[in-house]
Amino acid sequence: MLEFTAEITEKGVTERAFTLDRPAEPVPGILWTPEGAAGPRPLVLFGHGGTQHKRVPNILALARRLVRHHDFAAVAIDLPHHGDRIPEAERGLSREERRERLGRRLFGRGRGETTQLAVGDWIATVDAVTDLPEIGAGGPVGYWGLSMGCAFGVPLIAGEPRIDAAVLGLFGWAEGSRLVGYDDLARAITVPLLFIVQWDDEVVDHHHAAELFGIFGSTRKTMHANPGGHVEVPLFERAAAEAFFAEHLGTAGAQAPAA
Amino acid sequence: MLEFTAEITEKGVTERAFTLDRPAEPVPGILWTPEGAAGPRPLVLFGHGGTQHKRVPNILALARRLVRHHDFAAVAIDLPHHGDRIPEAERGLSREERRERLGRRLFGRGRGETTQLAVGDWIATVDAVTDLPEIGAGGPVGYWGLSMGCAFGVPLIAGEPRIDAAVLGLFGWAEGSRLVGYDDLARAITVPLLFIVQWDDEVVDHHHAAELFGIFGSTRKTMHANPGGHVEVPLFERAAAEAFFAEHLGTAGAQAPAA
Repeated sequence: MLEFTAEITEKGVTERAFTLDRPAEPVPGILWTPEGAAGPRPLVLFGHGGTQHKRVPNILALARRLVRHHDFAAVAIDLPHHGDRIPEAERGLSREERRERLGRRLFGRGRGETTQLAVGDWIATVDAVTDLPEIGAGGPVGYWGLSMGCAFGVPLIAGEPRIDAAVLGLFGWAEGSRLVGYDDLARAITVPLLFIVQWDDEVVDHHHAAELFGIFGSTRKTMHANPGGHVEVPLFERAAAEAFFAEHLGTAGAQAPAA
Repeated sequence: MLEFTAEITEKGVTERAFTLDRPAEPVPGILWTPEGAAGPRPLVLFGHGGTQHKRVPNILALARRLVRHHDFAAVAIDLPHHGDRIPEAERGLSREERRERLGRRLFGRGRGETTQLAVGDWIATVDAVTDLPEIGAGGPVGYWGLSMGCAFGVPLIAGEPRIDAAVLGLFGWAEGSRLVGYDDLARAITVPLLFIVQWDDEVVDHHHAAELFGIFGSTRKTMHANPGGHVEVPLFERAAAEAFFAEHLGTAGAQAPAA
């Protein structure tokens, strides 16, 4: 079901493109592992944001750091309607037109269906990559997802006992909005969380993000808030995410986290 | 004016008790430096919380880490009405009675006077310890203070250009409260800040703390929020404060920050 389609190794990190067979459509993904990896290791799932894709710079950078510094594996997939899954007919659309369509699909009527599809894609991805001997089943699994990656991450983590820790954020909702069903999902999450908030977020009001932070059932949850807009998360939060995963998923390798 | 009264060296850290001559009353303090320190180094000031004193465990632990891991100097003083400065007549009072009196002095009518006294004590302390060759003038200075340590820290940092970075938190106020004068002081602060918030704080509502965070003039400010009450800041925030000071004050020594 998981078929590797390309492989490249750079500075000790092997990056393999793959396609995962799924009922609706094939899901394209990338798996990062240490060069010559053998035997089980912690795994981190990367859920990209809206209008982004599986290999945006912030995912690529953190995935490589987790592999290089901690001997982890990392995996990212194109989420529904994104990356290589953008329908043929929409490839010529402007960013604004794409955003509007995505808005309807993610937060309008299509939300339930798209979320279900994304969560199913993730579960199938975890099934497939933990079948590989260089990752293995039953080991620690983390999830990283901001904005749309958080929107899909909440229902995934709430219902998926294999996920042990998560970096979420840039997401929330006003009380009484149509996302109120999320409260129960957020409450059901009890794993350690690092939650990222941007104080001047023009997409998600920081009060709404803070409200979501307050709801999570986890006793170990930390919110990191910084000034700036939705896509201006400071680079030092990448180091914080790395240290968070190293702490909660264990370090397979010998190197200490970069400060 | 600064007179050392006791000295002990343990695990590479020299701890000296001192008394600083001040117009109102002598101010007792502690200075931590690396064993055999010579030549200038970064300095961090520690402002304790209400009902606490200069040598409470959280100050002692972080001060020692900054000296051991980063070759910094650290200094703490008993703030007005605290530690060795508790008036004779109040030494037999219960914690509750002490709290009530402190409340009147810090947030009631006595606030302006007590704040002015505390800020003056800090400026005199910085003057005196930066005269010592093992610290030196003109070098990087940090401030750490939560709760009452933040209440006094805001006016200190707003008016004291020698302070380059600060860890503050566990403090804030409701709009329209009698602390509104603080807004201008908070806005005047532009140095890098790490701001600590406890989500279930029974003394300072987390909404009010977040409001203060939003007001600071600093472009580099990060809020770390965790579940738990006023005095339940998780231990890992001590490591975050250490890394924050190491980043913003520079590291005199060779060791990397402990993860």
